[in-house]
Amino acid sequence: MKTIGIIGGMGPLATADIFKKIIIKTKAENDQEHIHVLIDSNTNIPDRTKSIIENGENPLVEMTKSALILEKAGADFLIMPCNTAHYYFDELINKINIPSLNMLELTAKYIKNKFGNSVTVGLLATDGTNKSRIYDKYFNEADIKLIKPEKSQKYVMEFIYEGVKKGNYTMGTNGFFNAVNELEVKGADIMILGCTELSAVSEIYEFNKKFIDPMDILAVNAIKFAGGNIND
Amino acid sequence: MKTIGIIGGMGPLATADIFKKIIIKTKAENDQEHIHVLIDSNTNIPDRTKSIIENGENPLVEMTKSALILEKAGADFLIMPCNTAHYYFDELINKINIPSLNMLELTAKYIKNKFGNSVTVGLLATDGTNKSRIYDKYFNEADIKLIKPEKSQKYVMEFIYEGVKKGNYTMGTNGFFNAVNELEVKGADIMILGCTELSAVSEIYEFNKKFIDPMDILAVNAIKFAGGNIND
Repeated sequence: MKTIGIIGGMGPLATADIFKKIIIKTKAENDQEHIHVLIDSNTNIPDRTKSIIENGENPLVEMTKSALILEKAGADFLIMPCNTAHYYFDELINKINIPSLNMLELTAKYIKNKFGNSVTVGLLATDGTNKSRIYDKYFNEADIKLIKPEKSQKYVMEFIYEGVKKGNYTMGTNGFFNAVNELEVKGADIMILGCTELSAVSEIYEFNKKFIDPMDILAVNAIKFAGGNIND
Repeated sequence: MKTIGIIGGMGPLATADIFKKIIIKTKAENDQEHIHVLIDSNTNIPDRTKSIIENGENPLVEMTKSALILEKAGADFLIMPCNTAHYYFDELINKINIPSLNMLELTAKYIKNKFGNSVTVGLLATDGTNKSRIYDKYFNEADIKLIKPEKSQKYVMEFIYEGVKKGNYTMGTNGFFNAVNELEVKGADIMILGCTELSAVSEIYEFNKKFIDPMDILAVNAIKFAGGNIND
């Protein structure tokens, strides 16, 4: 089987999260049947959203360092468990010699295969991801309609930054579901959890099947690409 | 801050577990304040217990490969989230140029500091760990009395292999607590969860304060050694 390299630290918890998803979703009877995984949880990578929105330090230098370290250490291909980081994906793959799986492209393909391209998809993500228009790029390519919350986008941000990131579960999900309702009224058939903070709490809040988790799609694709079997 | 290297894959879930513990226990307001962590979840490392008990393939070759990969990738020091693997600790550190934290030695020191050395400590571990006598080594050095279950050791093994490893939670903890009771009758004041499978379920089963988790001790020591602050 191939060795998976994870460019991590964006943030660290999302890195731990996808690592665990890969382990749990792999069909294995003992340690040795699991996939070899190399991780660089590189917390020196500057904030991606700040770079895109506020013209902050470019994260590409540190992302490239991690990619090359993983390549040298023996990774056969790379994944990045961060939605916003995919803004730099094309530049990054030009600097390395091994393949990389693109979480956003795989998500668009998954949706096209499962729902066809007449489906309308709602995106729940940070202002940074929205403004970078990276999801738009891959969904335009797949010819799938993608819509975003407008008047209730502030509740998505509040839920991510004041709720999930601070571990404040008493806040509840009312605000968040304002945004979900806005998207439904506008015609969304399904919705993408387009921020790893949302992926991280999807089990706690039992988000239903209307929600698509790109981290799940990336984990399954990484296992298959590595030559592993999925644990049904 | 220093970069932590984790020799992982023994098993993969224990690796994910300590990675998450390090993240959650680190005081950090954003991604960049977290500690840089490199992980080699090397599932090519042969089974440690089989090597010790059944004269199986020696895991030291693959463990050393991982240690050197992590050293070269930039790790400043190493940790190993596997109890049984510490049987090879002294041989391993001779082959590398960076320091390693010894989980079992740190556990003995922690107990000596917190409870003094007149405490009697019970060990809940696999037959492999027990027969290797690695815990005995560090507890002898610290002059602390260490006792193990005898007639109910089989229930510890059953709980680990048929319960936790197979995700069979309906089995419950009655058998496991037979061993706990045997140790208490024999005079154990506290008990060590000396297998990462036991560490993994300590929150689910709400094991009380009588139980010492070496994985917690290793995570805290790794954060401090890296120069990070603990999240109280």
